[in-house]
Amino acid sequence: MYSVKSIDKLIKEFSNLPGIGEKSAQRMAFFISRTSKEYAKRLIEAIREVMEKVKYCSICGSVTQTDPCPICQDKTRDTSIICVVEEPWDIFVFEKAGKFKGLYHVLGGAISPTKGMNPQDLNIRGLMQRVRTNRIREVILATDPNTDGQATALYIAKLLKKRGIRVTRLGMGLPVGGDLEFADEDTLSHALNGRRTM
Amino acid sequence: MYSVKSIDKLIKEFSNLPGIGEKSAQRMAFFISRTSKEYAKRLIEAIREVMEKVKYCSICGSVTQTDPCPICQDKTRDTSIICVVEEPWDIFVFEKAGKFKGLYHVLGGAISPTKGMNPQDLNIRGLMQRVRTNRIREVILATDPNTDGQATALYIAKLLKKRGIRVTRLGMGLPVGGDLEFADEDTLSHALNGRRTM
Repeated sequence: MYSVKSIDKLIKEFSNLPGIGEKSAQRMAFFISRTSKEYAKRLIEAIREVMEKVKYCSICGSVTQTDPCPICQDKTRDTSIICVVEEPWDIFVFEKAGKFKGLYHVLGGAISPTKGMNPQDLNIRGLMQRVRTNRIREVILATDPNTDGQATALYIAKLLKKRGIRVTRLGMGLPVGGDLEFADEDTLSHALNGRRTM
Repeated sequence: MYSVKSIDKLIKEFSNLPGIGEKSAQRMAFFISRTSKEYAKRLIEAIREVMEKVKYCSICGSVTQTDPCPICQDKTRDTSIICVVEEPWDIFVFEKAGKFKGLYHVLGGAISPTKGMNPQDLNIRGLMQRVRTNRIREVILATDPNTDGQATALYIAKLLKKRGIRVTRLGMGLPVGGDLEFADEDTLSHALNGRRTM
């Protein structure tokens, strides 16, 4: 089949990015082949900068340019409460909402037998270490509200409860701004169980 | 708001790619921040290679690593028929189907008053030049089957017909493998007009 080798190579590399299928990768690669050299250079520089400057926080495991990260260094935050998330990105979602003033802990994924992710592949040891050496009164398990996230939360909850720590899970129910008719059975059942008196 | 400067910069650059919204750009940038350095380096190299090695074919305007491109150089192809497309990518779609054995011509877009694209912004002059200096018996106008593509096809058809060349347009109708119930009125009307005796 007719092809341009360099573009094919770029399509393949773009396809490795999360959420990028073959069609999107093609579109992106052809765009690069026709765009200004200035944009391509800026993109290369931006990737290189992330590759070289972004590291992991040695405390919470999030991505950061300083170690510890700005949140772990922030003296104004409540150090007695830790919110456990799967990925660094989740922290940014929380921070955007701006309602949580405690610390975070990044697991680096979720337990998933199908994806070959076992408890020892996650940064659970780091979490237990933090719980042992700091005064923690509550751990919020904010893993994803899906099967893997639930299994992970249950696994960690068991370990933490042995140490007598208050363990909570984010409330599940209807998404705000959503449409009731699009809610699946599980969500609706959680929403019912979590109903409140008005 | 809490952020990591280098990641923010990369999100911004990724957002400039076609079809990539803010959420996808975030996902991709966070992926880069956590992926192996090997992958990031391969991606950088692939972008650089496209930037440095891919150029335009001086005959058809497609992207290529040699000039003329392999198709324009191919002695086995029918040089009397030109298929006119909007973007280089369209050529790859045709070549994948493998049914067309003539040459191509890339316009570089379509006439679009709303996007500020005028006939002189497209490589129409190059097409007329080819038609003048070569024995062309047919030009297939394969611009997109939307308003801009139709307007562009009509504009070029007028110019070519003055020169007495056979001008055709790709057939429009129901997409193969599609579902009749999802067909819009225009498609259905084209399908009706183009119906064939079985």
